[in-house]
Amino acid sequence: MIRLFCLFSFLIIGFCASADDGYRLWLKYDLIKNTSVRTQYQTFTQYITYTGTDAVSQTAAQELQTGLQGLLGKNIRLQNTASSAPSGISLVLNASPQVNLGKEGFSIALQNNRLVISSNTPSGLLYGAFALLRKIQTATPLSKIPETSTPRIQLRMLNHWDNTNGTIERGYAGASLWKWYELPENVDPRYRDYARANASVGINAVVVNNVNASARFMSREYLLKVKALADVFRPYGIKIFLSVNFAAPKILDKFKNSDPLEPAVRQWWVEKAKEIYGIIPDFGGFLVKANSEGEPGPQDFGRTHADGANMLAEAVAPFKGIVIWRAFVYKADPKGDRFKAAYEEFKPLDGAFLPNVVVQVKNGPIDFQPREPFSPLFGAMPKTPLAMEFQITQEYLGFSTNLVYLAPLFKECLNTDTYANGPGSTVAKVIDGSLHQYPISIIAGVANTGSDRNWCGHLMSQSNWYAFGRLAWDHQLSSSQIAEEWIRMTLIQEAGGVASIVSIMEVSHGVYVNFTTPLGLHHIMGQNIHFGPEPWLERSARPDWTSIYYHRADSIGLGFDRGVNGSNALSLYHPDAIKQWSNVDACPLPYLLWFHHVAWNKKLSTGRTLWEELCGRYYTGVESVGLMQTAWSTLKGDIDAEIFADVSGRLAAQQREALWWRDACVLYFQQYSKMPIPAPLAPPTRTLEEIKELVRMYQLK
Amino acid sequence: MIRLFCLFSFLIIGFCASADDGYRLWLKYDLIKNTSVRTQYQTFTQYITYTGTDAVSQTAAQELQTGLQGLLGKNIRLQNTASSAPSGISLVLNASPQVNLGKEGFSIALQNNRLVISSNTPSGLLYGAFALLRKIQTATPLSKIPETSTPRIQLRMLNHWDNTNGTIERGYAGASLWKWYELPENVDPRYRDYARANASVGINAVVVNNVNASARFMSREYLLKVKALADVFRPYGIKIFLSVNFAAPKILDKFKNSDPLEPAVRQWWVEKAKEIYGIIPDFGGFLVKANSEGEPGPQDFGRTHADGANMLAEAVAPFKGIVIWRAFVYKADPKGDRFKAAYEEFKPLDGAFLPNVVVQVKNGPIDFQPREPFSPLFGAMPKTPLAMEFQITQEYLGFSTNLVYLAPLFKECLNTDTYANGPGSTVAKVIDGSLHQYPISIIAGVANTGSDRNWCGHLMSQSNWYAFGRLAWDHQLSSSQIAEEWIRMTLIQEAGGVASIVSIMEVSHGVYVNFTTPLGLHHIMGQNIHFGPEPWLERSARPDWTSIYYHRADSIGLGFDRGVNGSNALSLYHPDAIKQWSNVDACPLPYLLWFHHVAWNKKLSTGRTLWEELCGRYYTGVESVGLMQTAWSTLKGDIDAEIFADVSGRLAAQQREALWWRDACVLYFQQYSKMPIPAPLAPPTRTLEEIKELVRMYQLK
Repeated sequence: MIRLFCLFSFLIIGFCASADDGYRLWLKYDLIKNTSVRTQYQTFTQYITYTGTDAVSQTAAQELQTGLQGLLGKNIRLQNTASSAPSGISLVLNASPQVNLGKEGFSIALQNNRLVISSNTPSGLLYGAFALLRKIQTATPLSKIPETSTPRIQLRMLNHWDNTNGTIERGYAGASLWKWYELPENVDPRYRDYARANASVGINAVVVNNVNASARFMSREYLLKVKALADVFRPYGIKIFLSVNFAAPKILDKFKNSDPLEPAVRQWWVEKAKEIYGIIPDFGGFLVKANSEGEPGPQDFGRTHADGANMLAEAVAPFKGIVIWRAFVYKADPKGDRFKAAYEEFKPLDGAFLPNVVVQVKNGPIDFQPREPFSPLFGAMPKTPLAMEFQITQEYLGFSTNLVYLAPLFKECLNTDTYANGPGSTVAKVIDGSLHQYPISIIAGVANTGSDRNWCGHLMSQSNWYAFGRLAWDHQLSSSQIAEEWIRMTLIQEAGGVASIVSIMEVSHGVYVNFTTPLGLHHIMGQNIHFGPEPWLERSARPDWTSIYYHRADSIGLGFDRGVNGSNALSLYHPDAIKQWSNVDACPLPYLLWFHHVAWNKKLSTGRTLWEELCGRYYTGVESVGLMQTAWSTLKGDIDAEIFADVSGRLAAQQREALWWRDACVLYFQQYSKMPIPAPLAPPTRTLEEIKELVRMYQLK
Repeated sequence: MIRLFCLFSFLIIGFCASADDGYRLWLKYDLIKNTSVRTQYQTFTQYITYTGTDAVSQTAAQELQTGLQGLLGKNIRLQNTASSAPSGISLVLNASPQVNLGKEGFSIALQNNRLVISSNTPSGLLYGAFALLRKIQTATPLSKIPETSTPRIQLRMLNHWDNTNGTIERGYAGASLWKWYELPENVDPRYRDYARANASVGINAVVVNNVNASARFMSREYLLKVKALADVFRPYGIKIFLSVNFAAPKILDKFKNSDPLEPAVRQWWVEKAKEIYGIIPDFGGFLVKANSEGEPGPQDFGRTHADGANMLAEAVAPFKGIVIWRAFVYKADPKGDRFKAAYEEFKPLDGAFLPNVVVQVKNGPIDFQPREPFSPLFGAMPKTPLAMEFQITQEYLGFSTNLVYLAPLFKECLNTDTYANGPGSTVAKVIDGSLHQYPISIIAGVANTGSDRNWCGHLMSQSNWYAFGRLAWDHQLSSSQIAEEWIRMTLIQEAGGVASIVSIMEVSHGVYVNFTTPLGLHHIMGQNIHFGPEPWLERSARPDWTSIYYHRADSIGLGFDRGVNGSNALSLYHPDAIKQWSNVDACPLPYLLWFHHVAWNKKLSTGRTLWEELCGRYYTGVESVGLMQTAWSTLKGDIDAEIFADVSGRLAAQQREALWWRDACVLYFQQYSKMPIPAPLAPPTRTLEEIKELVRMYQLK
């Protein structure tokens, strides 16, 4: 990116437009080919002025200069002075705060030929600068340039599950971006490009290490490495956070234990916080995975999650730090329902946390399945700020070989009504703090970035990073609007092409659900290889890591009864939310098997039996991938050849994998339904045993 | 590289010369700035003709065209026809083979204004094309362009220790280049750039997967992925090999065992070989790590290494495949000497292997230590072709934070005399087959490539990939000559700058040895963190994974007595080789503690006691890193700014690590010597306990 963002980038791109390796993401800044589009922005090239003396203001001005020079093909003067010249762009820090702009909002105003971006803070100017660039990249008419925008959520955050050894848990795009062994002396120029990309979509906070955290990050040695990253991120308005290992006092400094009520342990954290803030004065705080999947935590000493979180919160409070405590907990119980675990542990603690603690909840009650109902915690903890944790990396969504645009999934969750304070109490309103007047609001996405040249493995997965950021800023944007923005910035400007790609992206999530887990099936993926099928998985290290725990297939039917005669997990929701799912005949089909054990021959609202519907969806899913391929193939010649080939190859892989899922699942469930694949669908040409072998092979060391 | 190797690359480079991310390696093809240098090659730009209809000939011609267009700044016509036009370049396949050119040699001849590259094979033309480009890149006068060159070793091979999950065992440059989950549908353009780089230095064989091999690679699913790579490598004259898991019949197809004398097992391999060659007709063969560090092997069934190797050799023989069987074996024995293990197991098997088996031996008897005496197997197996295994990746040479140029290490080993057939029986002559008339000759390097943009992590480590290839082609080249070539192609043309960098590179290996393991110390690095010190390591999973097993420090002295009163490992060498090391007073100091337990106060040939010499070398080592930094700093402004900064940062890290090693080792050994750090050296300012904590911290999960 260093190369491509250099002053003359607009010249380079022209020469090699036919080989785009995807590194530049949506920040392409190629010369706008349409002269009339370009001409309307000409007055913006007279100069850029800014008055701030801080690093973020300077970044805003420089990014604007770089982008506009590329897009408009002109050198633009940059002045660190006030100006009221009749044309050009001025970045203005408001002398007195404008309430409507809040802390990070911005206004873009046209004053004849002069464009003024104003904000109460340097960060707001940075977001305004990127907003203007986006408008120009997408050829927005001059009349639609003016805008006032403020983020709906305070902390818009990426969580990196990156390890000290450079691997990424659930990463499918190469190695970690962070080269811990080389830091702090060696600062990869890519760190800056990463920060730039985040800032361009409004992401302002980053947790750089895995929630399964190494205690190393609490050592001075590693804190100096983290500081080097913080120094790169700061000019882009990004705060750094760390995941902490709850047993750090024991692991690092050989304490007898890490009991949060033990004074020496508490003092250790107080000192550690002081040390951290001495090194990184604007450090954000801690993210904690405790007593979850084997990680240490306060329950090891008979204490509560609140005891643990509050100890850390007290330590960072003097520095305005916060503690983000994950609610992803569940205990191995073959007779229980993992669906209820987080709720049962955390709901009773509402009100027990200090004010600088936020509880971070995954969107659904299980674990980032292709589709989940919202976690029943949303709406159930009015006294505790809840953060949303989405997964951008495609752990259960086909790794880097499947095209799955996630904005529809994010939106589906955010728009769902919890009914907590009556109708309209959407998950989004819980998260943005408006429903319960939370003092802190956070939305986090588990990052999909890695060392692959195109950052995300699948070029199209860049759209998920982008969409996460845009929705974190404003969850009211539509998924198609975000898709269109991204496509026009990344792939193509021409309307027909844009429409084709929007349509592929908009259906893609539903397609993936169809060929993997239709009708509310969940957690039937391969053990370790989450991108493949393994509905037959009967034994694992824990009962709730098997597939049969979730699908409950038997001679009668399929699905997990979570109603009053089953696990009664449904009862955790608000009565009005329960209603939509509790009646098997009225339950929307996408959620059917999440809540009901349904007879194979039961007629559904579609007029088909469960078995017919199930097979139909698996087959439709595969067919849809074929249609996505066909739609993509029409773009040949219209978009960059390297990107076209890359996505084509991945779609072919997806087609192969979709068939794998379909055949695996219909053949496996057929053992219980005892019914033929319904005509006119052609039965699989391979046996279940053959597929099992293929799955097993992918699980060999 | 796709971008940078495109037709107009020479134009691009000009714009952004100030930001070189290292991706292009030594194949830069920037326009030669010096007009008179450029002018002498002008007649070469008239045309390029070639007659071959094969893919390799075409590659040769196209690479030549791309390179010359960049270097000389002219479009060059390419013609797939014969030509005797008076100027231009002709690639000519000899109508009748010229014996002196062998299978892959080439001749470059000047016939007035016409340059003719001829060879008996397309591969030879490819090597000739890259040789010509190298000459032009290094501004060779026209009169020195003509050359005849043939490789001294048949198979010049990289071994990738890359895993199916994208990690690399002992890799320090990001993730694996091979994206197994995305293959075969998605073929990363980088694969081709990798092949190009290999071909440019004469590497013609590649093992793509880790010797700790997954059985997956023997499945049809994975063979189709491997085929996709083979198809990319083939036009670059590169054959693909696979590491195999000896237990594959059991793991993949549930056989009771993998006994090499069991007919069903033998038949499985026969069928598997047929299947592989059906998919990849020019497949090279197998590399096997058996009964080594927990890997399965024939000894599991009471059979010998020869039994195992011969079974595989029979299976691939009909297809002219070969089996490369590693001699890296050693058994955990606290009273034994690992030094002798490979010799004791393999020497008795000399003559027992089928003709298409090669035994691959690491350069030294232990494991790629910063300096080792040559393995006593070299020269001891006249009836068995031995392959050399060097390690290019810097497992014990400072990972990616240390500048260590490896050609001096490689050369030191290759030039050592085994005395097997009298004086002059160098290791090189064993390996190139000339000493024992081996029918097959192989040199292998464990690759240092990864997904990092610059391929090798440390920019300067690119020189080790380069040097390995060049020495594999011709082990008589000097390390400084290779360094100079590489520097001029990669970093700078100006003579003063070249000389500065050559001098840094040439001393770098000695410097690293000094601050880590001077005087023949070995294997005292950190457990798991091989880039740091841990001489105090007393307990590990195996006794021969500790440090005390090797350094044997006690109140009397330091070093491993491998003479007649010790382990007698020295006796494994030829009597004339023994002589140089057996007398403690005459033993060259770099090897002293490899073979002798030396009293702390013994006077050495330097006039200083062992303790004084030891401390002196550790301190000199650290000081030398400072000198390397100073020398590098003088290049500021003369070489690319991004590269300058990257290497500067890494040198700073190396300085920190050198101090770490020095302080750790002198303080640790001081516990035994009971002597002060000799004046005027200033004692470390930290305690041994503090350093131990730092080492421990790097070993935490």
